[in-house]
Amino acid sequence: MDIFERIKKNPGPLGQFADYGEGYFIFPELEGELGPRMKFKGKDVVVWSLNNYLGLANHPEVRKTDAEAAEKYGMAYPMGARAMTGQTKYHYQLEQELAEFVGKESAYLLNFGYQGMVSAIDALVSKNDVIVYDQECHACIVDGVRLHFGKRFTYQHNDIDSLRKNLARATKITEQTGGGILVITEGVFGMMAEQGKLKEICDLKKEFDFRILVDDAHGFGTLGKTGAGAGEEQGCQDQIDVYFSTFAKSMAGFGGFFAGDKTVIRYLQYNLRSQIFAKSLCMPMTLGGLKRLELLKTKPELKDKLWENVNKIQSGLKARNYNLGLTNTPVTPIILEGSPIEATIMAKDLRENHGVFVSVVVYPVIPKGTIIFRIIPTAAHTDEDIEFTLNAFDAIREKLDSGYYKKAAEQMDVDYVQY
Amino acid sequence: MDIFERIKKNPGPLGQFADYGEGYFIFPELEGELGPRMKFKGKDVVVWSLNNYLGLANHPEVRKTDAEAAEKYGMAYPMGARAMTGQTKYHYQLEQELAEFVGKESAYLLNFGYQGMVSAIDALVSKNDVIVYDQECHACIVDGVRLHFGKRFTYQHNDIDSLRKNLARATKITEQTGGGILVITEGVFGMMAEQGKLKEICDLKKEFDFRILVDDAHGFGTLGKTGAGAGEEQGCQDQIDVYFSTFAKSMAGFGGFFAGDKTVIRYLQYNLRSQIFAKSLCMPMTLGGLKRLELLKTKPELKDKLWENVNKIQSGLKARNYNLGLTNTPVTPIILEGSPIEATIMAKDLRENHGVFVSVVVYPVIPKGTIIFRIIPTAAHTDEDIEFTLNAFDAIREKLDSGYYKKAAEQMDVDYVQY
Repeated sequence: MDIFERIKKNPGPLGQFADYGEGYFIFPELEGELGPRMKFKGKDVVVWSLNNYLGLANHPEVRKTDAEAAEKYGMAYPMGARAMTGQTKYHYQLEQELAEFVGKESAYLLNFGYQGMVSAIDALVSKNDVIVYDQECHACIVDGVRLHFGKRFTYQHNDIDSLRKNLARATKITEQTGGGILVITEGVFGMMAEQGKLKEICDLKKEFDFRILVDDAHGFGTLGKTGAGAGEEQGCQDQIDVYFSTFAKSMAGFGGFFAGDKTVIRYLQYNLRSQIFAKSLCMPMTLGGLKRLELLKTKPELKDKLWENVNKIQSGLKARNYNLGLTNTPVTPIILEGSPIEATIMAKDLRENHGVFVSVVVYPVIPKGTIIFRIIPTAAHTDEDIEFTLNAFDAIREKLDSGYYKKAAEQMDVDYVQY
Repeated sequence: MDIFERIKKNPGPLGQFADYGEGYFIFPELEGELGPRMKFKGKDVVVWSLNNYLGLANHPEVRKTDAEAAEKYGMAYPMGARAMTGQTKYHYQLEQELAEFVGKESAYLLNFGYQGMVSAIDALVSKNDVIVYDQECHACIVDGVRLHFGKRFTYQHNDIDSLRKNLARATKITEQTGGGILVITEGVFGMMAEQGKLKEICDLKKEFDFRILVDDAHGFGTLGKTGAGAGEEQGCQDQIDVYFSTFAKSMAGFGGFFAGDKTVIRYLQYNLRSQIFAKSLCMPMTLGGLKRLELLKTKPELKDKLWENVNKIQSGLKARNYNLGLTNTPVTPIILEGSPIEATIMAKDLRENHGVFVSVVVYPVIPKGTIIFRIIPTAAHTDEDIEFTLNAFDAIREKLDSGYYKKAAEQMDVDYVQY
């Protein structure tokens, strides 16, 4: 069958909602200054769906640096791949400062986090190696693992017994192949909001030989005494062999980095296909990255304010009988049962009638039958934003308890494929 | 063996040159305003290794737009994936204008070209489909093909007979699997500089059922009457099913786009993992993209000037008995035989003694025993730059003919692994 014919017949798990949800639930457009108060479809909303943890996106010093760097260099500078013509002393400086901040010898800057992770997994393992990874790892990790020519095992999410079993399986294989083992997990799981059990995983090094790669996208800047992430929080940063974070969350930008000891970072520097064969991180984001990191280091009050807000909204929601799962991070998932249609009716009610904009996550991002309203508190939210939102969730609670959304979903005549 | 032990023993094909070449041949740092005259190691050089074809990187209108957009929005805006919270009317506007410019119904903007291509290949094919692709396709295409669960065949570079044979093989397989065929090639091959034979490939649709995806990174903005690329140049743009370009070349930025008919673009919009699960293109590059595209459309003199320079440098080099291969594009490869060490001695001579900075490409990017000095003319180069450079290549010619570089390489005692 012609490829386009197949595409027409099967638009994919998200594509099936396109006609129903485009511009509202998917590809919605938030307008105005980026922050807790924006406009959606012309109405004022309190926004809880931007990963702007420390509020740096609109911090005056960040904005000043971004503007000045773009004025001085434009968006093109430097042109070419880092290894060819994309090197500047500021890229190098940012790497040194990032390495120092996360307690590692070296760091390597990435033009984009997603492809950086894909290429790093690809580069680190050879066909004789075995990858053992948490089954809820982010899409970029999954894509990287898909490039692996050798064996790979998933372990049950954050389950140390399951990991131990799979490390035993992997060890048997590497005894035959002569390869090594790479464990991959996350510092913070962005959907279900709990930290990866890094300390307990690293302790398994006493039983098994492996290296560990940690994606700390949501932990960097938000966890640990200095903000150095989930490894610092759990007291095992020195046991993490390859540390990764994107700049798309607390750093309020794009790009990312790897950190580790000199040997592995130097290896990554020379072997990441998406970096060798694609353009270097632009100068405004490099200089902007230096400024953001400076604020992370010198303004602990930003992280304190973030956590003050996290505690207020999480305790307020728990008091209203909402299930926040196992969160021990700023990510605040309100976990409900129901169909995707039910989820959209609730999200619409929240937006239209209560002025609260949260992202709604359904299958295939999370298991079928589960709905998550995902709240991301930031240092920029005010007490008023929090109170306003908790009041909205009071009203939602009543409708949930009365079965209002379930009934409304049953009455809707929406024709979509149940994947 | 522990993964890090293996890495230490085998630093990879480029990594082996690290101690010898870092900071000079690999990860060199060009300083000063981006353009034909920059500084390298404190010396003035004429630079021929930036893909700034139309000179837009430092065009005053582009620089003004980049600066204003960064001042107004910062580098964080919009936050989140395009489908979640990363949508703006300007992203949509740029898509519409790009589609119109390349003669397609729709377009979809990418946060980065490399990962966009990887995910598009991944999304377009299912395990029953067969991919047939040119063996010299770019790394991002290779990585995308590596994610494919079904069969894939390469055909000899730009060889229609070889393609025909592989289409016959692929057709037999799809007759059994019920799948379709996706052909992937490039509008311009960035190393060897010749156009993909798009017209002849598209003509094969009369013999075989397939869809074609074209990566026109170096063709967009440089080829065709209006600059719409290699498909326009060859009069077969309407036959290209999925058209791709990065913004990292003539658009002097980063990001990229796909264009095609509504069905396929809508499908990509909902199914590209690197776009669904990673941050949207930042606003300065989106507004900056609109400005760059406006200049592409309204200032044909930029492309005229590029080609004037291309013709001057290419005819000058040919007159000096240099082999430029099959170039029919602005990319100007000087193709020589020799070892990587010989290549570095020549490049150093050019930089130190003649003030000319070109990139040198050796194995593993190109076949063993071949050296390419890769010259990228731009609209920003002057007649003086060209004359200066041709004079340098006069001197190089003499040393080449006398065997100077070969002898110098033999006398060097460089310990590196021959991959």
